[in-house]
Amino acid sequence: MEVELITIGTELLLGQVHDTHKQWLGQRLAGRGRPLSRQSTVPDDGPAICGAVQTALGRAGLVITTGGLGPTDDDLTRQLLADLLSRPLGRDASVAAQIADFFRQRNRPMPESVLVQAQVPEGAVVLPNRHGTAPGLAIEVSPNPFKAGGEPAWLILLPGPPRELRPMFEEQVLPFLEKQWPLRHGFHCRILRSLGIGESMVEETLRGPLRPLVARGLELGYCARIGQVDIRLSGSGPDVPALLVEAEAAVRAAIGKHIYGTGDETIAQAVVGRLIATGKTVAVAESCTGGLLGHHITNVPGASAAFAGGVLSYSNALKQKLLGVSESTLAEHGAVSKPVALGMAAGALEVSGADHALSVTGIAGPDGGTPEKPVGTVWLGLASTGRRPLAIRKFHPFGREVFKQATAHQALDLLRRRLQKND
Amino acid sequence: MEVELITIGTELLLGQVHDTHKQWLGQRLAGRGRPLSRQSTVPDDGPAICGAVQTALGRAGLVITTGGLGPTDDDLTRQLLADLLSRPLGRDASVAAQIADFFRQRNRPMPESVLVQAQVPEGAVVLPNRHGTAPGLAIEVSPNPFKAGGEPAWLILLPGPPRELRPMFEEQVLPFLEKQWPLRHGFHCRILRSLGIGESMVEETLRGPLRPLVARGLELGYCARIGQVDIRLSGSGPDVPALLVEAEAAVRAAIGKHIYGTGDETIAQAVVGRLIATGKTVAVAESCTGGLLGHHITNVPGASAAFAGGVLSYSNALKQKLLGVSESTLAEHGAVSKPVALGMAAGALEVSGADHALSVTGIAGPDGGTPEKPVGTVWLGLASTGRRPLAIRKFHPFGREVFKQATAHQALDLLRRRLQKND
Repeated sequence: MEVELITIGTELLLGQVHDTHKQWLGQRLAGRGRPLSRQSTVPDDGPAICGAVQTALGRAGLVITTGGLGPTDDDLTRQLLADLLSRPLGRDASVAAQIADFFRQRNRPMPESVLVQAQVPEGAVVLPNRHGTAPGLAIEVSPNPFKAGGEPAWLILLPGPPRELRPMFEEQVLPFLEKQWPLRHGFHCRILRSLGIGESMVEETLRGPLRPLVARGLELGYCARIGQVDIRLSGSGPDVPALLVEAEAAVRAAIGKHIYGTGDETIAQAVVGRLIATGKTVAVAESCTGGLLGHHITNVPGASAAFAGGVLSYSNALKQKLLGVSESTLAEHGAVSKPVALGMAAGALEVSGADHALSVTGIAGPDGGTPEKPVGTVWLGLASTGRRPLAIRKFHPFGREVFKQATAHQALDLLRRRLQKND
Repeated sequence: MEVELITIGTELLLGQVHDTHKQWLGQRLAGRGRPLSRQSTVPDDGPAICGAVQTALGRAGLVITTGGLGPTDDDLTRQLLADLLSRPLGRDASVAAQIADFFRQRNRPMPESVLVQAQVPEGAVVLPNRHGTAPGLAIEVSPNPFKAGGEPAWLILLPGPPRELRPMFEEQVLPFLEKQWPLRHGFHCRILRSLGIGESMVEETLRGPLRPLVARGLELGYCARIGQVDIRLSGSGPDVPALLVEAEAAVRAAIGKHIYGTGDETIAQAVVGRLIATGKTVAVAESCTGGLLGHHITNVPGASAAFAGGVLSYSNALKQKLLGVSESTLAEHGAVSKPVALGMAAGALEVSGADHALSVTGIAGPDGGTPEKPVGTVWLGLASTGRRPLAIRKFHPFGREVFKQATAHQALDLLRRRLQKND
């Protein structure tokens, strides 16, 4: 069954709002074996909306729209699609009561105009909205006037705001899909996440070992992000769970030391999770990343059990004052150097009392490079109680923000590898 | 002229990669008076790619595709569209030389397969790639076989990676568009960015003063992001520049103290720019934001002239040890309190020797809340040499990541308001 997504809103095309629906819904649909086959965005404009929905219903078995269900003048979706499908709108008393409740609970007066959201097309299934006033709607288009054979399709209308759409999708749409279209063979998927090895090297290394499994039905996909490569193992059918176990073992045998996690785990989650599980802590001494490393760590809920804090030693003065890096080391080797990276990590370890300390010192650019240390040069340090300190040099000449992201991920990976060896 | 964008890649539909092109290109095209009229995403699949391009060429005067220009087996765009338009591919010697240079500079062996990227459809304009190996291509489709009247259209193929696409678009595609389609009446746009005032309050406050200008042709748009509202003033025609000057004056008269910048300036850029211009510096003492505040500041190129660094005082121990907050203050008021926010800011000011210091201490959640200090509570502090320190309490109960972002922006805005008063 083909699945299409149509996100509706002029503000999305003007770039005023960032459209998160494709990625979020795409991940969840793929994870349930019903990958999105196409997505489009149209403005708040009648002919554009109707045309896109009509075209999609002519191809797909499920069409999801987002947006345009609110109470203002540019919210057109409900009325337009009711007209397109010749389903008269009528007020649903229970939706109207929920909307009135929503305002009463918040102690706000209810403008009469919001009750347009209680209008429901004939025969539509109402998907209640726990976090807003506009309910979702599921409409069975049967017979389907837009398909040559008339095969039925479902049209599901969801509200635009992510905090309303997401719980509605997980709590109501996914169970609805499982009921309407139970997958015959069951779809299975396993994602392994790697860091510290390039995409072409991953592909080249895995091609041989996975070839016999691909012949038996394994589907293999790679996805490269800044410094990271995800390996996606999937397939449909009764033999696939066993096949995925074999495939994962083959991947781990070939590149296991680069695999930091599975599913949608981040490197920060992997590191923080392991620290919490073993009762250990980490501190940071950041120069060029300017706080990004700490930001990643503290994005993980519960990070306070594992994160001791640290120092943003952007200036040489703070490197000396708070981390005890000596003036002579800075003068002799420069701030971007192995001795300074080691000194920063040692200083952060001592001042914080943590079990591990990561340090970062580099040249993010656009200025500050020299022939020996061009923009993009960075030293990463790691100090741990009772272990030898280490430092590595990396090079990321791809602009300031990519530099910071790649560097923060590598610093976390440096600690991940040390923690893994301790197991 | 209608403009359509087609982003190509199965990974985008699976949600493995976040598609940033719609927002980024949408903003830039709208800012030049050529707003995107439609966007779609298709998988790496021949019929889907060709079908989408054909449909778009049937509607629009400019069709932009992204992705699928690389050297691997799932990069199909160049070959497919050359076939669709019956333009034989031939090797372009200068592109081939650039690709060879790219590998030579990086001291890496060049696989023969990458030279497929030097294949150029007959008559296409080559857009050199400064940050990768696949050039962009601009093809004039004239006559246009997909439009009833045969009116010509341009098809522009851009590489998928943002760090390659973005400079190519700004340096080559935008000037190309200005040359091909000079806007008859000239489009003008001015964006004012506000922080610290809600969207509905902005709308309500501006409705009256701007009504006469809207009657004279001013187009008005609002865009709300986390804690921020952009006010977009635009229009086409010879009188619009003067109208925009009037409109901006009216907005500033009504809500000027909340306006921090214009265009796509960030609050961090506004603050860092003002600090650099006046030769002043800022330090930070971050607890719950965990480094995000420093990250925003150091995202601004040249920030090192204005950023003194700081302390990630995630633990009470570091608040005492590095910032001099007393044990009794922490015990009496708790870490999330006005005296601790003030103490952290004072400590950061002293240890860093900066002119200003911002502090943040709060409860990001999901755990750690109490009835008096629920999750989402945060205190922001500001200390400056020769000025009275201040602290404000805020509440952002919207999840950990929104909490961190809103808090970091508000902290920067606190300093922005102080710097503005000094003018």
